[in-house]
Amino acid sequence: MVEPNYNIIGLLTDFGSKSSHYISSMKGVILKINPKVKIIDISHDISSFSIIEASYIIKTTYKYFPPHVVFIIVVDPGVGSYREILALRTESNYIFIGPNNGILSVLLETDEISECIKLQNKDYFLYPISNTFHGRDIMAPVGAYITKGIKLTNFGPKFSLKNLIRIPITYKIKEDKKEIKCTVQYIDSFGNMTTNIQIDNDNNIKRTSFSLTYNDIIKIKIKKQLYTGKYTSHFSTVPINSVLCLRGSSGYLEISINQGNAAKELGVNVGDVIIVNL
Amino acid sequence: MVEPNYNIIGLLTDFGSKSSHYISSMKGVILKINPKVKIIDISHDISSFSIIEASYIIKTTYKYFPPHVVFIIVVDPGVGSYREILALRTESNYIFIGPNNGILSVLLETDEISECIKLQNKDYFLYPISNTFHGRDIMAPVGAYITKGIKLTNFGPKFSLKNLIRIPITYKIKEDKKEIKCTVQYIDSFGNMTTNIQIDNDNNIKRTSFSLTYNDIIKIKIKKQLYTGKYTSHFSTVPINSVLCLRGSSGYLEISINQGNAAKELGVNVGDVIIVNL
Amino acid sequence: MVEPNYNIIGLLTDFGSKSSHYISSMKGVILKINPKVKIIDISHDISSFSIIEASYIIKTTYKYFPPHVVFIIVVDPGVGSYREILALRTESNYIFIGPNNGILSVLLETDEISECIKLQNKDYFLYPISNTFHGRDIMAPVGAYITKGIKLTNFGPKFSLKNLIRIPITYKIKEDKKEIKCTVQYIDSFGNMTTNIQIDNDNNIKRTSFSLTYNDIIKIKIKKQLYTGKYTSHFSTVPINSVLCLRGSSGYLEISINQGNAAKELGVNVGDVIIVNL
Repeated sequence: MVEPNYNIIGLLTDFGSKSSHYISSMKGVILKINPKVKIIDISHDISSFSIIEASYIIKTTYKYFPPHVVFIIVVDPGVGSYREILALRTESNYIFIGPNNGILSVLLETDEISECIKLQNKDYFLYPISNTFHGRDIMAPVGAYITKGIKLTNFGPKFSLKNLIRIPITYKIKEDKKEIKCTVQYIDSFGNMTTNIQIDNDNNIKRTSFSLTYNDIIKIKIKKQLYTGKYTSHFSTVPINSVLCLRGSSGYLEISINQGNAAKELGVNVGDVIIVNL
Repeated sequence: MVEPNYNIIGLLTDFGSKSSHYISSMKGVILKINPKVKIIDISHDISSFSIIEASYIIKTTYKYFPPHVVFIIVVDPGVGSYREILALRTESNYIFIGPNNGILSVLLETDEISECIKLQNKDYFLYPISNTFHGRDIMAPVGAYITKGIKLTNFGPKFSLKNLIRIPITYKIKEDKKEIKCTVQYIDSFGNMTTNIQIDNDNNIKRTSFSLTYNDIIKIKIKKQLYTGKYTSHFSTVPINSVLCLRGSSGYLEISINQGNAAKELGVNVGDVIIVNL
Repeated sequence: MVEPNYNIIGLLTDFGSKSSHYISSMKGVILKINPKVKIIDISHDISSFSIIEASYIIKTTYKYFPPHVVFIIVVDPGVGSYREILALRTESNYIFIGPNNGILSVLLETDEISECIKLQNKDYFLYPISNTFHGRDIMAPVGAYITKGIKLTNFGPKFSLKNLIRIPITYKIKEDKKEIKCTVQYIDSFGNMTTNIQIDNDNNIKRTSFSLTYNDIIKIKIKKQLYTGKYTSHFSTVPINSVLCLRGSSGYLEISINQGNAAKELGVNVGDVIIVNL
């Protein structure tokens, strides 16, 4: 059995724009193996080594794509030291290639994993393999060969999901105090801060008994400083420069400042733990 | 009648590189509907909410593309509050999708608009529609369906051009004083400042009786400060660090500093009004 | 004889993200001539006018691509003043289009040049030709016509390689002192500094009798300041914040700080000359 027709490759890295030739080297390697594949940049502006941010981007982006996309994730602080490189296939038929450093565990939140392989078959690697750029020498060629119809099992042995490293991310609910200790998992270029509190379409907070109503006042504790923000459906319902909370376009609670930069003004970085009182 | 063959989608947003997963979500939505379409990034680095800058990019870029491109413009400070989202077709057979916030009026300067539709038919939207990301949930799928041959009239009712919101941009000619009060509509990464004064290939200023000759000295008043710059054909005709004026590659008067950053050194932002004396 | 099938165009510019509409104009021009070509962004974040950095990106990237790619290089401080624009073909069947300002001479280091043409035939240019943007008006259309099968000789007369301008880059070996005076040719977004000292897979320094062994201590003199760094195979073998040296993924000696920004901390820019003692 050959693989079904994977014909799009999505690239996610922390290389940044000043290292875009690293990205184009990967594209060259891919096109040399399969000139017909479509390559899409998911993002190359992940903060250096930020596994939390990369995980957020993956989980909120991949399902917008049609199935049979191969995502290659090069956020790899451990490159050169030993860590496995894996290829995972989800039930929904997306494939993810990346180092076993916590990033791939995000898929356990969103999908079933139907297959997990450790990349080991050197026939599909690019020689000489550098010590510092496995994205180009291992992940890119393997991704390209998948789009040529090579089965996952050809790239190496099965890898047990028990050994998949998990992302360290805080999420503690205190039901009695209506309080959630949570993590800022993403900050966009407008400074909007996305927590890992998931809200459904009816404004209920998932995995809790809490539910929100527009105009509720939410208390937010950041580094011992207390803020309040109105829960609202969109920015312009609060005055300019006021804090607001909303269900972001990916279904997570976001903390923003209307026409301001919340992260800068409140001094928050990705990975910071904050306390939200509903 | 089906639409002619629109097979390229151009994306213009103010998301910036830190929000590139918003852009890739839009690409995913498009490819899910039409995996064969070619997607081109026009720019994602428009200053946040800058309708003037986005308008400039549109008018100076789109005609370099072949006809039958669908441009999707997501510079949308009003997202979530009510404003129409429109799809326009020009006589020259380009289609533009964007919010009715002034951006689309730039096409009145450069083209004839042959059709204007208000997007309303929810059959072509992505559910659930978020409050904060209509680029992904409304504009991207409609753009993709256009490339699948769906007629504009299927997406909603006609929208009168009388209701098209106009960009506020200053352009006042004082013929007697040989003076033009104008707007800086764009600043590039070298700091070159592009005004909205249009110059033809023979160095005549459009819509005036003024004409320029190389080596003319132009007076420029910026925030009460007076500068002079030689009108020239290229940078290297003036000393390093000197102000110069030239007909930029898009046909507008540009104010630059040879090997320097004019916008930073003169303290100018997009949208600033300046006075030019010829 | 028609050209072999060139069907990928790679774009390398110093336009930066704030000028991305210049890049998309070039893409429009290309797609108008050949809607089927695949366009790949090599990098647009070369430091303004940095011929050394652009040369480094070219030589370390192009061979990862399949042959029959046309690379268009718009790093062009002399635009508007007279300098030739050339099209080169290498033995390995890549074509490079760019100004004769030193950039193209990098190919003499890595390849044989089998053909060199001065672009002169205006039939293939875009009118009106601007004074400031030959990337769009000359290089992009010529590149696109090459992918349509037009032979190089149609674009202009032969150009002698004797007249190819060379990049000024320092590389002086003192065999007795085991010392190399070299140039920092590239700094990536992590601050890793790449010199022009080439190391082979067995840790021998090319064009010298020197050879390196892991754990060697290398002395580095930067602006009269002396540093030492361990030569190693990967970052994590030295403590966090320590200087290290390694054979980078492109085969050049790199100077880095483990989880730090070497270029910022040591005050180094692209083009700086430093002295390395082995």
